[in-house]
Amino acid sequence: MTKSVAASKIKLYFIRHGIAAEPENYPQDEDRPLTDKGQKKTRQVAQRLRELDLTVDLILTSPLLRAHQTALILQEMGLTPEVKLSTSLAPGGDINNWLSWLTQWRSQGGTHLGLVGHQPDLGHWAEILIWGEMRERLVLKKAGIVGLNLPHSGDPVGNSELFWLTSPKLLLGESGIK
Amino acid sequence: MTKSVAASKIKLYFIRHGIAAEPENYPQDEDRPLTDKGQKKTRQVAQRLRELDLTVDLILTSPLLRAHQTALILQEMGLTPEVKLSTSLAPGGDINNWLSWLTQWRSQGGTHLGLVGHQPDLGHWAEILIWGEMRERLVLKKAGIVGLNLPHSGDPVGNSELFWLTSPKLLLGESGIK
Repeated sequence: MTKSVAASKIKLYFIRHGIAAEPENYPQDEDRPLTDKGQKKTRQVAQRLRELDLTVDLILTSPLLRAHQTALILQEMGLTPEVKLSTSLAPGGDINNWLSWLTQWRSQGGTHLGLVGHQPDLGHWAEILIWGEMRERLVLKKAGIVGLNLPHSGDPVGNSELFWLTSPKLLLGESGIK
Repeated sequence: MTKSVAASKIKLYFIRHGIAAEPENYPQDEDRPLTDKGQKKTRQVAQRLRELDLTVDLILTSPLLRAHQTALILQEMGLTPEVKLSTSLAPGGDINNWLSWLTQWRSQGGTHLGLVGHQPDLGHWAEILIWGEMRERLVLKKAGIVGLNLPHSGDPVGNSELFWLTSPKLLLGESGIK
């Protein structure tokens, strides 16, 4: 007899951090903040996501400053009630770490999740979820978005659907980015 | 000595036809027209594409009425100066047929191309260009859009990048679709 596990469909959004300060003035990569333009554009993206009625239960973010700031802007604009830091989302993080966490999280009823992180990791992870392997064929700009449907049950690796991929420019139009 | 071939980067947009009349009243599938809602939503998508400054040199469309009407709306809204019919884009069409045509077309200097067609073909073709095989993992809604960067030269199969995938809803917001 197999144990019955309550399963829910998960919508997973990857959001790449906004434009950050150049490395020259920041000896520690994790200290690089969003630039003024990066903050402004991230705010415009967040505003547009609100117009599209897009909200999530939780945003999990890389602890690096540029990602954390991006997540806080999304929270401030009403896209999520809660932001948590996860070292699994730092550059070079292992998808299996946060997927284990996600399995736990979904068992508690979570259905809409945002992850704020970095390239090339977000692109790799999206490809692994969709096709089971990474090929570096997704163009994910800063403050760009990936939308994935994870299956109701079973392994999401190689079994998830891509329903959205957009740059800020194609989300907002040139007029939105000044 | 290899022959030098002038090559250009190609932006390729797949646009799925808009919402069409149900089959009941149309014994011939190719005669199904866009519904009023399908025309309206396609027009709204076209309007948004104009706001995003998106234009193409040519739209190649499936000859089926619902696709041809979609292409003509895009033309009417100023997205392309020219619409051509291609039986290669009809349901079940072979990607190699229109890829051969595209090779010829790009040699004449074309860089931005729109293809209007059907599911599941458009999704399959996008996956073949990006990953070299189809897995049915892309969600392409009616009047939805796929944006691909084809490489400067060489075989685009398995070597193209995905830079955009959107439904009309995520392009326009709910308020745009009434």
